[in-house]
Amino acid sequence: MIWDFFTFIRGATEFSATALLILLGCMGDSTNQGGESKFLVASVHYGLTVMVVMHVFGFVSGAHSNPCISISCYLMGYIALEVMMMYVVCQMAGAFLGYFLLMQLLPKELVDKSKPGICLVQPMDTLSTYQVVIIECLLTAVLVLGWCSLWDVRNGRFLDSVAIRMGLLVIACSFAGIQLTGASMNPAKTLVPAIFYGSPNSVLMQLTGQILAAIMVPFVWNHAYTPPYKPLEIPVCN
Amino acid sequence: MIWDFFTFIRGATEFSATALLILLGCMGDSTNQGGESKFLVASVHYGLTVMVVMHVFGFVSGAHSNPCISISCYLMGYIALEVMMMYVVCQMAGAFLGYFLLMQLLPKELVDKSKPGICLVQPMDTLSTYQVVIIECLLTAVLVLGWCSLWDVRNGRFLDSVAIRMGLLVIACSFAGIQLTGASMNPAKTLVPAIFYGSPNSVLMQLTGQILAAIMVPFVWNHAYTPPYKPLEIPVCN
Amino acid sequence: MIWDFFTFIRGATEFSATALLILLGCMGDSTNQGGESKFLVASVHYGLTVMVVMHVFGFVSGAHSNPCISISCYLMGYIALEVMMMYVVCQMAGAFLGYFLLMQLLPKELVDKSKPGICLVQPMDTLSTYQVVIIECLLTAVLVLGWCSLWDVRNGRFLDSVAIRMGLLVIACSFAGIQLTGASMNPAKTLVPAIFYGSPNSVLMQLTGQILAAIMVPFVWNHAYTPPYKPLEIPVCN
Amino acid sequence: MIWDFFTFIRGATEFSATALLILLGCMGDSTNQGGESKFLVASVHYGLTVMVVMHVFGFVSGAHSNPCISISCYLMGYIALEVMMMYVVCQMAGAFLGYFLLMQLLPKELVDKSKPGICLVQPMDTLSTYQVVIIECLLTAVLVLGWCSLWDVRNGRFLDSVAIRMGLLVIACSFAGIQLTGASMNPAKTLVPAIFYGSPNSVLMQLTGQILAAIMVPFVWNHAYTPPYKPLEIPVCN
Repeated sequence: MIWDFFTFIRGATEFSATALLILLGCMGDSTNQGGESKFLVASVHYGLTVMVVMHVFGFVSGAHSNPCISISCYLMGYIALEVMMMYVVCQMAGAFLGYFLLMQLLPKELVDKSKPGICLVQPMDTLSTYQVVIIECLLTAVLVLGWCSLWDVRNGRFLDSVAIRMGLLVIACSFAGIQLTGASMNPAKTLVPAIFYGSPNSVLMQLTGQILAAIMVPFVWNHAYTPPYKPLEIPVCN
Repeated sequence: MIWDFFTFIRGATEFSATALLILLGCMGDSTNQGGESKFLVASVHYGLTVMVVMHVFGFVSGAHSNPCISISCYLMGYIALEVMMMYVVCQMAGAFLGYFLLMQLLPKELVDKSKPGICLVQPMDTLSTYQVVIIECLLTAVLVLGWCSLWDVRNGRFLDSVAIRMGLLVIACSFAGIQLTGASMNPAKTLVPAIFYGSPNSVLMQLTGQILAAIMVPFVWNHAYTPPYKPLEIPVCN
Repeated sequence: MIWDFFTFIRGATEFSATALLILLGCMGDSTNQGGESKFLVASVHYGLTVMVVMHVFGFVSGAHSNPCISISCYLMGYIALEVMMMYVVCQMAGAFLGYFLLMQLLPKELVDKSKPGICLVQPMDTLSTYQVVIIECLLTAVLVLGWCSLWDVRNGRFLDSVAIRMGLLVIACSFAGIQLTGASMNPAKTLVPAIFYGSPNSVLMQLTGQILAAIMVPFVWNHAYTPPYKPLEIPVCN
Repeated sequence: MIWDFFTFIRGATEFSATALLILLGCMGDSTNQGGESKFLVASVHYGLTVMVVMHVFGFVSGAHSNPCISISCYLMGYIALEVMMMYVVCQMAGAFLGYFLLMQLLPKELVDKSKPGICLVQPMDTLSTYQVVIIECLLTAVLVLGWCSLWDVRNGRFLDSVAIRMGLLVIACSFAGIQLTGASMNPAKTLVPAIFYGSPNSVLMQLTGQILAAIMVPFVWNHAYTPPYKPLEIPVCN
């Protein structure tokens, strides 16, 4: 990887994208009062925020804004290892800044009122550790599958509405699991609030599921859903 | 049909697509508490799940994930009889696996709480048998019409947002009929929960309506909405 | 106009489209219980139904399914007078059939329960006649503007997501006016339930506003928003 | 700038677009009763109205309908200073007309009932002046970022669903901040109701944030997210 201006742009974009995702997403979460449609509203707002981030930054760096996606992107062979690591670092830094900024912007009463914490989600009590890991893995797998489909060359002509589709996918996955495991499907969104609040009890289970999905899906995608393209053989002149 | 790797990919895709449809769709259903907006939320989640499945798998096998659609696809002449039968088998197997997996993942209390059962829907009591069959037939017919439109050559340039449109179509149809007949519009989604719960009372009515629509719509589409294209005559050299 | 098979297809499509619009739209309305989000749900379902109709039938006849749109389409010069008249007749016939069919399909209790009637809407009491006419005219004008934009040659490359956009436009307009004038924006949807229930009190005001919009908007569009294209002069050989 | 017919069309379009935005948006606001989902519904309706305006007028003048966007558009170098000033004047005039018309169309009871006023929003009491300015600046910045992305040449192929994406972006931003600062993100929508109701207490804070975002974002966009294209050097013949 050459550390030129393009690399800087892509890093800055991932940083901004994740900061925006956390800042905008958790701002909506902070004023979401309890009630009948609380979980639906939270899912819709999370999905729309992903859509916003992909619309604004998608064509610069891809707008992964999620370490899982960058890991899968590397395993699929679309980005180099160094780029992936730079993306993940920028994403974590962006998530921290976004959450820190949000804490300064919100009135203290609002922050104190939210239980267990703004953007902090706890798995359902009646779920066993295995169930939490598998459900979180499954939902993150659907998200990664959505990205694999978006990256696939066969889908290359259909990118116009892809930000909307990914946003709706996040709504569907988030709503399916929000009351079970929290369904953040994003290590940055899972880790950062837990660190701020100092309550990393369930974070490990959620993270395990998310990373598992990021590693397994590219393997499945390449072996079950992709025909074995024979690469063009370009003779190398020595 | 040649049983090559492409055939395997398409079968595996239909299997995965239907498993995902049932797993993700019914997971959302399991935590959907009763309340004013219960039916709207159920419809929206079902429609979004269809959108997710079409986004992820649409360009591989078509992502029918619904035996009715595969039957109509065969009757429209787009796939061969053997492919249709393989699709239906893969779909039913996928639906079984998806529902079975879901039962393992959810805590027992959640499963017991849902009445009459997770993803199991009963027609409204005051509807006669004929009314249930016709309403279910009608709603499935709209779904099949949506697919016929998507397959039509005149629509070939407008496929970018088609997954979103089909998802919204499912939301509209599902919301229109969810309190009347359940409006699953999908034999796999109708049969599988009924078999698990062992309550196949109303399933026959729903299935009759769905299959009826799958058979009738291609006929209507070809004769009422399609101009009689004259095929190019390619001289055959003997 | 030549009465060939293409003309038949277009008439049959407008007939089916309007029947589907009324049948699906009012079926959702029949089970929409009163409550806090009643009006939002009604608007969303109406908009989604328009989206469904445009997705399924849009590329055959345009899927106006609304006499106002056909009148505007004629005034903009896109269809001939005879075609417009055929469209309107087919639309009214389709709306009647759709509503009649719906009455047969729904259980009697459901029909009796809905006040003032299924898909029948009354303007707000405190609105004067002028206010009803102008608000209905204004909302219908926005709908016609949406169609004028869709027909415009400058928009010709952007038709993929147009069914979704028109559906969302109908949601926005319907929600803005549903509690004021009913905001059906469609003479077929306004007339048919009123005739079935025999209560044509407010229908005349609503219809006046709708027809007014259908006539005025094409004039405004051509004179305020369209640059004066100079037509190509093709020499006529005598 | 030459004051020809094209200039007139663009001015008339900005005027109509802003009038429609205020008229349709605030009409929906006037009948939005308090309740659990009040703020979500208000955000959704605002976003859909933006989508409607962009669908109808987008391809004529861009349908900024927001002085902030026109200022940013000028700073990005896409329109000339005179055009920007004409746009802003037309937008403010349109917003006034739209709000004035709405006041005539709504029954007096409805207008009196709404607190603090139709489309008039007050920041949360517990927020400091700095917090209001920064949050409003931040949300407006996201909106301007969305427009910068839409204008970017790298995004030029993906304009079909852009009206929907911008509408959803407005929903996301509006919902995130509606209970904090009002999140109108539009000086026209902020100023006009305040002038009608004569309560310009918090307007200054909101306006400061909005204008700040309009000025800062183009600078950030050009320096952090855009590669330094080297312009083609066209030799000038003297």
